Parts: sequence; structure tokens; C-alpha cells
Amino acid sequence: MGASSSSLSLSLTLPNHHHSSTLFHPKPTSNFITNHKSLPLNSPPKSSIHAIKHNPMSNPHTIDSELLQKLVLDALVWTSLHGLVVGDRNLERSGSVPGVGMVHAPIALLPNSFPEAQWNQACELAPIFNELVDRVSLDGKFLQDTLSRTKKVDAFTSRLLDIHSRMLQIGKKEDIRLGLHRSDYMLDEKTNLLLQIELNTISCSFSGLSCLVSDLHRSLLSHYKKPLGLDSQKVPINTSASKFADVLAKAWTEYNDLSAVVLVVVQPGERNMYDQHWLTATLKERHNVTSIRKTLAEINAQGKILSDGTLQVDSESIAVIYFRAGYAPIDYPSESEWKARILMEESSAIKCPSISYHLTGTKKVQQELAKPNVLERFLENKEHIAKLRECFAGLWSLDDEDAVKNAIQQPEAHVMKPQREGGGNNIYGEDVKETLLRLQKEGSEEEAAYILMQRIFPAVFPTVLVRDGICYKEHAVSELGIFSAYLRNKETVISNEQCGYLMRTKVSSSNEGGVAAGFAVLDSLYLT
Amino acid sequence: MGASSSSLSLSLTLPNHHHSSTLFHPKPTSNFITNHKSLPLNSPPKSSIHAIKHNPMSNPHTIDSELLQKLVLDALVWTSLHGLVVGDRNLERSGSVPGVGMVHAPIALLPNSFPEAQWNQACELAPIFNELVDRVSLDGKFLQDTLSRTKKVDAFTSRLLDIHSRMLQIGKKEDIRLGLHRSDYMLDEKTNLLLQIELNTISCSFSGLSCLVSDLHRSLLSHYKKPLGLDSQKVPINTSASKFADVLAKAWTEYNDLSAVVLVVVQPGERNMYDQHWLTATLKERHNVTSIRKTLAEINAQGKILSDGTLQVDSESIAVIYFRAGYAPIDYPSESEWKARILMEESSAIKCPSISYHLTGTKKVQQELAKPNVLERFLENKEHIAKLRECFAGLWSLDDEDAVKNAIQQPEAHVMKPQREGGGNNIYGEDVKETLLRLQKEGSEEEAAYILMQRIFPAVFPTVLVRDGICYKEHAVSELGIFSAYLRNKETVISNEQCGYLMRTKVSSSNEGGVAAGFAVLDSLYLT
Repeated sequence: MGASSSSLSLSLTLPNHHHSSTLFHPKPTSNFITNHKSLPLNSPPKSSIHAIKHNPMSNPHTIDSELLQKLVLDALVWTSLHGLVVGDRNLERSGSVPGVGMVHAPIALLPNSFPEAQWNQACELAPIFNELVDRVSLDGKFLQDTLSRTKKVDAFTSRLLDIHSRMLQIGKKEDIRLGLHRSDYMLDEKTNLLLQIELNTISCSFSGLSCLVSDLHRSLLSHYKKPLGLDSQKVPINTSASKFADVLAKAWTEYNDLSAVVLVVVQPGERNMYDQHWLTATLKERHNVTSIRKTLAEINAQGKILSDGTLQVDSESIAVIYFRAGYAPIDYPSESEWKARILMEESSAIKCPSISYHLTGTKKVQQELAKPNVLERFLENKEHIAKLRECFAGLWSLDDEDAVKNAIQQPEAHVMKPQREGGGNNIYGEDVKETLLRLQKEGSEEEAAYILMQRIFPAVFPTVLVRDGICYKEHAVSELGIFSAYLRNKETVISNEQCGYLMRTKVSSSNEGGVAAGFAVLDSLYLT
Repeated sequence: MGASSSSLSLSLTLPNHHHSSTLFHPKPTSNFITNHKSLPLNSPPKSSIHAIKHNPMSNPHTIDSELLQKLVLDALVWTSLHGLVVGDRNLERSGSVPGVGMVHAPIALLPNSFPEAQWNQACELAPIFNELVDRVSLDGKFLQDTLSRTKKVDAFTSRLLDIHSRMLQIGKKEDIRLGLHRSDYMLDEKTNLLLQIELNTISCSFSGLSCLVSDLHRSLLSHYKKPLGLDSQKVPINTSASKFADVLAKAWTEYNDLSAVVLVVVQPGERNMYDQHWLTATLKERHNVTSIRKTLAEINAQGKILSDGTLQVDSESIAVIYFRAGYAPIDYPSESEWKARILMEESSAIKCPSISYHLTGTKKVQQELAKPNVLERFLENKEHIAKLRECFAGLWSLDDEDAVKNAIQQPEAHVMKPQREGGGNNIYGEDVKETLLRLQKEGSEEEAAYILMQRIFPAVFPTVLVRDGICYKEHAVSELGIFSAYLRNKETVISNEQCGYLMRTKVSSSNEGGVAAGFAVLDSLYLT
């Protein structure tokens, strides 16, 4: 398991904490841009030839330009008519007022090839990871012990641990436990292994939009069946929005107060608002459950706990708290936001996630679980344990001397990941060696702020991306996220299921003008 | 019947022929802003009290502000997720590239009350008007004679008549006849009569978006059933987009060439493109019929007629030509565009509309048909004739001395409408008197450029409008458009039906800052 941040990591692109950053900034906590540095500019990477081999679409760069233009226009029209949209970051009101300043979400024009075996493997892992999160979250001591060194060097994790301790002290019971997770994977090109990048237990983004991308791709493949020669049925059905909405509704039902609503905790100026609106609109349409949207600051100003434990915000009783904010230090600019977080945690509302689910998603816990015999503390089923372990990449603490030695010798085979959310970028290549040597010399506590991870080399493949109405032929890498939901009331597990997927594809080369450098798009997959 | 222009009259707001005008400019050819001038600024018009009386929603201006805010936010989210969008006129690329620069369509927050009897009356008239258009269009001499004086003073109508003559000369047969019409009505407040403003036989806009407004209103009324106390079932189901798409598909089937496509003739820089995309997307999704979009200039450059009469544009054979341009002089900036129009008319493709359907929709023909005993030339069914006549407002030619005398005596009860498409505005009040007196004095042919029409006074009612993400409390008037489709192959009538509706609501008062002065929105209706 990995970092908790799964939504938009805005703080990295804009250190002044402005919120109008790009939607698809490379996640600081993932392996996502692994071989970016190693690629020569303006030439396709060597591995693209390899990638084409297993791509049944052959090379989409060779699509006839007239056909390409038709495909792009149809895709753009489709996005506009079907709400596959985001707020345009160039327009001021697009993050605060729905319906104004909309632009289509950045997309891959055609789905990305993916082997069926690894797809099935990823789906099968979903309920097992759900169960693991739930079990780990119940072991308060394990969480506190595992994160004790991180606590000293990371103020943010420290504040989360304080809230967690307080809940342990007052013996807070969470009978109804709701997790809406997303486990992110990459396919290592050499070994063809599906390796986990991280498990997100808070604020998983794109469940609202990713299902639309799959629909779009199925529609294009079906309308252009002849010239493309592809089978739309090989794009797996993706019902991420309705599945998440269904489980939110089930949780609301368990809370058992017909007048209560779902509280969506949002960032101010959220340009990915339509992704969230799809969930709440589906919740209303399918289940007649009402939701309200509030920032942490608003919750602090308008929220209170009634004597029976009920959370009330703006005079509405809250059944379920669904976090789409609160996962990164930037979300807590003052004590008001922390007060709001504590208020929610102390209430009887169902938290998605609770503080213990949130902490279970940290990279440090992911690394601890990868140690020998740790999974066995939480799960009995040996087959499940083996399946989980199969997808673990190498993960080490910096107090593991052998691992550090190894990484200094082979820096290109490792990534250093900062534990702190929303902090600096991952460290790659020679920088790994230099940083490790500096930390050894200084002998400081700072090493606790990092974990070491095996560097994953995904296939680089030619692809066609569409952003801001413009079509780009690029070489890219992909990351597969599997959404999953878990809902339990006391001993009864109500839901434990895979809930669709998110494919994100990111440019791995810079184009001549540097225009497209580094941007990422929403994608879907084509089973091979 | 009235003017042919039914889409966006851009030339009036921007005489330099730029295309980025407002979507909802008051139609120059209609009665739409009847009592605009007579209203004192910043105070509700007297008639609003009358209007409230028959409005079951009571006064929407009195809706509690918290509820109002929720309704507006929900409406804005709904529009974004469901493609109820237009190109933002403030953004340059929004008329040329789909998916960029989108903003929600201007809408009424809640549907507008409308009496069920008049609604039924308007629906019943639809197939009768369809039949009338078809019959009149077959009488080439009637069209030429009726428009002979207009021809002398209006270069645009003259060019259309030339094409029509040429087709008569070569004996052009149109076995398959397709009409997608919209008949526009206002409800006269004093008499409660449903009176026709005009019948549009070319380029009827908003069939793609208006059905979405009805869905939106049904959704809001259903979600806010308790606080609003309204019944969502009283908003008539509106399937305008799918009905028009269905009939386009039927026409395509009659053409009987599986490889042929539908040609949508478009204006360059069309910001109402999503309205059109809804039709063609539905055509593709429901019937697997492909369409292409071309401007008149492109058709001139890329089009040709094969020896068998087939129209080919950009190497595609054309089954059906659907005009969303070509109805106003501004659409023909050079001879190229006229060549394209002639090329299409000469081909064997099904025209929607043919030149004779187009001419049948002119105001002069509408006025001629309103004369005693003229309808009888075209229709046999006396009940149908009576029904049509019931909805005719008073219509007179300027060579009718009694009518002119009457209008000089009672200018406030008349409107002068310029025959010429896309020309100046309608003339109201004292200006009617002055213009008539001037024309009498000059004794020029210019009088043939106008028709006189009874001025209709619709009820003014309080309403809440949303434009560009901003909510306005206004007083407004409404115009009801009934979409209808007619398809005939030789003697077989394949379709003759009502196809949904468009309610347009337009501000009748100026607000303090003048911000909202004159703007119009898409609306739906609530049967009372």
C-alpha cells in the first residue's frame, strides 16, 4: 500500500498553494514518470517497438490522417454531450461555478492494450486489499508503531496520528466502516509482472469520469469497426461512478436516518468538480440520496455535534462523510481545517475514510506490510497472502542497511519516495545515490521521511492524446487503477467488490516544442 | 406562416458579418419583444399580477433564497453532465472546436405555466401545417406569383426564386420530400388565443437542446417535490432530438444507399453546434447513420454531381441534406455559396428543405395564406382549415388600403415585419404609423418589403433565469415552438407528426444595470 494522496497534488506545481494547477500533475508519490529522464528528446524510445508488438491496434501514429481527424472530432463531440468535462484552468470561475468554463477532460483517443491475465489479476486483488485495509486499520498499535519514526519528521502525518491516538484513547467505535479505494498498478515491461504502485484509501479521484472514457472508447471502436479493425467488447465495461454511488447509498441506508445527507468534503476551487458531481448526481438519481458539498473551513464554521453524536453541518444531519479533500498538508492551511477534521472524526457519521483507514494508506505502512511475515498478522487465507505478495514491488525502509547499500550500487533500479504527502517529487537515478550518501553522512532523522522502492519500467508505447481540443501523437506509459468498495456494519460485510477502473496514460517523451511534456490523460484498456 | 429564418439571426447584432454573436438575439421576424417598449424600467409590469394568477408555482421570485441557491446549483451541474451546453461567445475557439470553451445554455430555472388546451391545440396543428407546406410547395406558380412583388425589393428572396424557377424549368422531381419544421406561437393574454408567429421550414434550431431542458425541469421538480409542490409529470415529455433523428434516418433509408451519409450544412463558427451535434450523435447511436458537416463554401469547393444525379461532397455520397445554414443573406457572402445551394438543389439528394419548402416558409406566403379562401386551394378537410385559421393572427399586405388605414389609426395594435431575412428589426408603436405614412407619401415599391401583422400581447410573468452561471429574477414573455416532421416518398406519407417542443422565454423588462436587458433562455412548459 502506498500514499494516501490520490486526488490532485496541487502543491507541487504551485508552491504558493494556489489551487488552479493542472489536473494531471504527475503524482509525486508514484513511479509514474519512471523513465522520463532516460529518453532522448524527439525520438521514439527503443521500447516502443516492443510495445507495438503486443498492441493489436498496431501503431495508432500510422492511422490515416483523415480518419484520425474524424476520430478526434467524434471524440470531442462525445465528451461534450456526455459530461466528460473539467473546469478549464485558464478560466477564473471554472473552479467555483458549475456550468461555466468547461473543457473536455484530457483523453487518450483510443484505449490502451492490456493483457487480460493481468487485468483479471488486478480485479481479483481488489476485495483482498479491501479486507487487508480493514484488518490493519483495526490494529491501532501497529499503525502507531509503524509510523512512529515518520511522526518525528513529518508534521502532517504527526497530526493525523494525534487524531488517531485521541480516538484510541476515547475508545471511539466505528461500527460501520466504509472504504472507497483505488489500487494503482504498473506492468513491468521486462518481467510482465503487475506491480502495485500504491493503494489509495482517501479521496480517490476519477471514479466519476473514468467510466465515461470507457464508454467513449467503446463507442468509437464500434462506430469505426471497419477502419480500425477493433472489437469494442474488449474494452471492459466500467461502472465506476454507479458502483461507488451504490455503495455510498448502502452506507447511507446503514446509518438509518432518512433525513440525513452525504457530506462531500471538497477543496475550494476544485476544477475536477464534475468527476465528483457525477457521483453525487448518480447518488441522487439512482437512490434519491441528497448530498451537500463543504470545504473543511466551512465544516469548521457550520458544523457541530449533537448530544447523541450526530454531526450537523449547515443544519443538515450527516450520514456519510466522503472526503475529496483533507489528504495533503495544503488542505489544512490553518487550525480551522484540523478542527473540522477532528469534529468529523468524533461524530457518529460514517467516515469515508476514517482516520485509521487514512493512515493504513500511507507509504510507510505499505512498506511495512511488504516485510516478511507481516501480512500473516492480518490475513489467514494463504492464497490471498500469496496473491498480494505477488504484486508487491520491492519496498524498503532506509534503516535497512543492505537495501540502502544495494540502492547506492544500483540507483537506476530504485526510486526514493518521500513519505510526506504533497511534498517534493520522487527521486530517481543518480539523485538516489547522492541523496542516500548525504543522509548516511549526516546521520539525521531525515531518512525516516523516505522509503525506497524498486523502480518499475513500464512499456513505452505510441499513442494519440487529445487535450484542449488538440491532438498529440506521443509515446507514453500507463498506470492502471482499480476502484474498490468495502462496507461493513459490525460483523456483517455488506459490500466488498471491484468497482471499475481508471487507466491513466502519461507522455514519456517531450515533443519538439515541449508543449506536451509530461501531461497525462484519462484512458481505458483494450484486453489482449 | 412566416419567415424562414429560425436559427440564429447573427447579422443583426454584428453588421460586419462576424459570427460570434449572442445565441439568443431577439428574432427580428417575430412578435417576440412585443411590449418591451411599453414597460417602465425597474418595476414589474402590471400584467405580472395577472400572470401569477394562473401560475401554479405562485411567484418563483418568492422562493426562499437558500432553496433557490440549491436549485440553481443543481441545474448548473445537470446542464454540465448532460450536454445542455453552447460555445461561450467570449472564447475564440468555442465556435470551431468542439469540447473547448463550453458554457451551459441559458435556461429558465423552472418551467413556464401553459394551459393544457392550447398545448393540445398546438400539437394537433403540427401535422396539418406539415401537410399544408407540402401542398403549397407543389404549386410553383402560387409561390412565384405570391412573391413576385417581394422579388423586386428583396435581392435574397429574388435569388431563391431564381433557383426555384430553374428547378421548375428543368422539371426537377423531388419524389422524397422531407420537412423538419417548427411552428412558433404566442398566447395572447386578453383573448387567451394561441396565435401563430411564424412557421419555420428551414434550419429550425434547438431540437437538440430543448428536450434536455424538459428533462432538467422534470428532474428538478422531482427532486424538490416537497418544497416546490409541483408535479414533474406535468412537464410534457419532449423527445425532439430523437424524433428528428428518427425521421432523418427514415429519409436516409428511403434514399436507399447504404454507403451514403447525411450532410449537415453549417455556418462557420457555429456556437450552437452542440444543438446540432445532439441530432447527428443520436442519428449515429440509434440508427448507425453517419453525417458530415460542411459550410456552403466547402460544399462549393468539394462538391460535385455524378452522372446519375448523386451529390458527392468530399468523396462522400449524400443521401440527405440537412440545412442549418443558408436561410439568411449573411450565409451567402459570395457567389460560391449560391453555387453550392444550386448544386445541392440540382442533385438527387433529399433536401431538408427543398427550395420550394424554403419559400413556403416566407412571411409573404404566410400572409397570403391568411387571406380568405386561399387555404381552400390547398386543403380539402374543412375541419383542418378551420383549425389553421383559428391560430392565424391578422396578416395584411401593404397594398391592402383598409389594413394600412387601420394600422395608421391604431399603430400600437400592429407590427410591421420586414420580409427580408436577417434584415432590420420589426417596427412597433408610433414607428408603424410614421413608416406607413412615409411609404404612402413616397409611393415606392418599398412597401412590398413589409407585411403588417396584428400585434400579440402575451402575458408577462415573473421568472428566474440562469445565464453564464448567474441567476436573474426577471419578468418575461414566452414563445412556444412545436417541432414537426414530414416525410413522403411519392404517394406514401411515411411520417407526419409532432416532434416535441421548444419554449423560449425572454426578458421583457430591463433590470437596473441593464445587464439582463433583452436576453432569452431555453425553457419548458408546465401544463395547467
